[in-house]
Amino acid sequence: MTAIIEVIPNGSVTSPRGFKAGATYAGLKTYGADKLDLALLLSETLCSAAGVFSTNKIVSPSVTLSKKRISAGAIKAIVANSGCANTCVGDQGLKDAEEMTFLAARHLGIKDEETLVCSTGIIGVELPLALIRQSISKIQLSPDGGHTMARAIMTTDSHPKEMAISLKINNRTVNLGGIAKGSGMIHPNLATMLCFLTTDAAIEKSFLQDALNRATEVSFNMIDVDGDQSTNDSVILLSNGAAGGDTIRAGSPAADIFQQGLTYLCIGLAKELARDGEGATKLIEATVEGARNTEQAGAAARSIVSSLLVKAAVHGNDPNWGRIMMAVGKSGVELEESKIALYVNEICLVEEGRPIPYFQDAVVAAIKSGDVSFRVKLNVGDGSATAWGCDLTTEYVTFNAAYTT
Amino acid sequence: MTAIIEVIPNGSVTSPRGFKAGATYAGLKTYGADKLDLALLLSETLCSAAGVFSTNKIVSPSVTLSKKRISAGAIKAIVANSGCANTCVGDQGLKDAEEMTFLAARHLGIKDEETLVCSTGIIGVELPLALIRQSISKIQLSPDGGHTMARAIMTTDSHPKEMAISLKINNRTVNLGGIAKGSGMIHPNLATMLCFLTTDAAIEKSFLQDALNRATEVSFNMIDVDGDQSTNDSVILLSNGAAGGDTIRAGSPAADIFQQGLTYLCIGLAKELARDGEGATKLIEATVEGARNTEQAGAAARSIVSSLLVKAAVHGNDPNWGRIMMAVGKSGVELEESKIALYVNEICLVEEGRPIPYFQDAVVAAIKSGDVSFRVKLNVGDGSATAWGCDLTTEYVTFNAAYTT
Repeated sequence: MTAIIEVIPNGSVTSPRGFKAGATYAGLKTYGADKLDLALLLSETLCSAAGVFSTNKIVSPSVTLSKKRISAGAIKAIVANSGCANTCVGDQGLKDAEEMTFLAARHLGIKDEETLVCSTGIIGVELPLALIRQSISKIQLSPDGGHTMARAIMTTDSHPKEMAISLKINNRTVNLGGIAKGSGMIHPNLATMLCFLTTDAAIEKSFLQDALNRATEVSFNMIDVDGDQSTNDSVILLSNGAAGGDTIRAGSPAADIFQQGLTYLCIGLAKELARDGEGATKLIEATVEGARNTEQAGAAARSIVSSLLVKAAVHGNDPNWGRIMMAVGKSGVELEESKIALYVNEICLVEEGRPIPYFQDAVVAAIKSGDVSFRVKLNVGDGSATAWGCDLTTEYVTFNAAYTT
Repeated sequence: MTAIIEVIPNGSVTSPRGFKAGATYAGLKTYGADKLDLALLLSETLCSAAGVFSTNKIVSPSVTLSKKRISAGAIKAIVANSGCANTCVGDQGLKDAEEMTFLAARHLGIKDEETLVCSTGIIGVELPLALIRQSISKIQLSPDGGHTMARAIMTTDSHPKEMAISLKINNRTVNLGGIAKGSGMIHPNLATMLCFLTTDAAIEKSFLQDALNRATEVSFNMIDVDGDQSTNDSVILLSNGAAGGDTIRAGSPAADIFQQGLTYLCIGLAKELARDGEGATKLIEATVEGARNTEQAGAAARSIVSSLLVKAAVHGNDPNWGRIMMAVGKSGVELEESKIALYVNEICLVEEGRPIPYFQDAVVAAIKSGDVSFRVKLNVGDGSATAWGCDLTTEYVTFNAAYTT
């Protein structure tokens, strides 16, 4: 059954019932338009929690601690900071992550082990715990605090990313909300993709994790800003059941509806992250159809949006289909050159592997007018997938080269 | 035994005995400082030949034809053009590649099947055979023609890449020479890495291929300009035996000496390609030591030189070691964070996975003064490898975004 999804106007991570959030400036973040840098998200009741984390071999102890607590039990809160990644700081990192959750839990009147922690910012510098100790009690939580938290987790993002939707499940209205911050890299050091998702649906824990894995696979795993992966990337989903109703379990029609909603939300936030990559001026959407299978379609689509040459060509409003063919070819997926068709903003440029006559000015105009979509038909199977990226601009290089001392 | 390698001053692909080359302007290349665009390399006698080619799933029919001829028999000549890649042009591509070798062979008085063909330039446009028919007979070959050929294969390269060395093998002087062209990408379309290597040593064919594979593995496969792989990348090695002496076979001391010389030559040319990446201002050398094995060391080293963030940081003279840790971590190699040491231009910045106090100005000054070297010690095994890349500059983006119609 196809879910009927309604987007909640001005929605955020606190749109689902029973969630509150807030933020303050602790003095950790010394750059960016928005100086908020320490935030809390709280559920009135215990939540089932699920998480997807960086696969980088070097991760922040904050990631390690949050992972452990998600698998250990129910969760009530997340404390998050920008300005410092708490990574590559030796044994002190885990101690500091634990203390952050202790301070947050004390302020919120909950238990340490019900609290997760996420950090983003400079690598190799210890968390200034003194500043956090001093400031965390200033954070006032409100049912509309998602907007403030969305600002507090930003690093080089140009604006906060927030979204919420509602769904009908078993005749009840269920809400899902989320905030995210940039996958582009940060001046002067590594940034991180952080995403916090909430729902007031009651979801059985193992299905919650499976649903998040599936949604992440087609959203956050399909965006590329610069091919680099942070040590702190985290997507966390909390379900508090405040909407009432039976617990949703795998295999039920309700589970199917919930999955559709969660995937929709994650794709919405992921596209905003791609569009707001550092220095980016437009979103690139690449769809590959007719691949041998979904996995191969995904690999080819990701190869297109992560090719520097494709990204630079889009920035120059250049319908440079040769670079797209190259990107598909280097992804290693099964293909027959003579079967490939290629569309730019739905204008066909290549059929049976060869360019067809097209009105170049029309294609340039289509690209110039806004976002760019590429569609590649491999015509060797039924697999399809979509990936998103952004154009590569001189501003990206300037951002990331600017730091000298 | 360690080979005694002498670099031949002003050496080129025609430095080994019995090789001649030449080039002309046929009208194929409409950009670049140097308008030569059609070249021939000829050996006086038949050569054993070996080749390493693009693994992109979409390749030029020129690559397909040259591969077939190398495996079929002995080779006397290579015809190469810049300005047009002869790729994504349907069945006509193979016919044109064959006709190019026919025209070259007729001009040189040799057989078609003794002739290889390489093309580099725009994708999706048929080779203008009429121009080639008209001009190929103008090419005059000379024993010093390697310099001219090196210019003729250039696309966005800022200068030709040439090198030759001599070695003593069994008390005879043996020469190896080579020319190469840029692995950076080309305005307005795909460029290609081409490398033509010659030797007057007599080498048994299967060892010649093995030796080329090994040399390529640690040279051309260890450079990165922008992570994209052309449809036309080719490295070809011809051995004509003009130096006299017994044929060199696998497992002999002579084979070992030859391998060292070939590897030295390939690394020399590969470093020049990396240094001259589009828009680049400096060479980056990344060495990873103490990896579990050579393969893992190579993966980690390549991950460093291909990270956009590392490349942008180098451009900004920024000793941004956090980005190097991230790049090593995302390569997926076995590591223990607490065992990692990191050096920038031989100045230690990280020990046991944590930053140590260092004089930042000294490191910035070291990076500013010229090329940059990173050394990462993983301390989990004996594998080591080196990779080369270049900095990422705003000029790269400008180059590759500039084409609009």
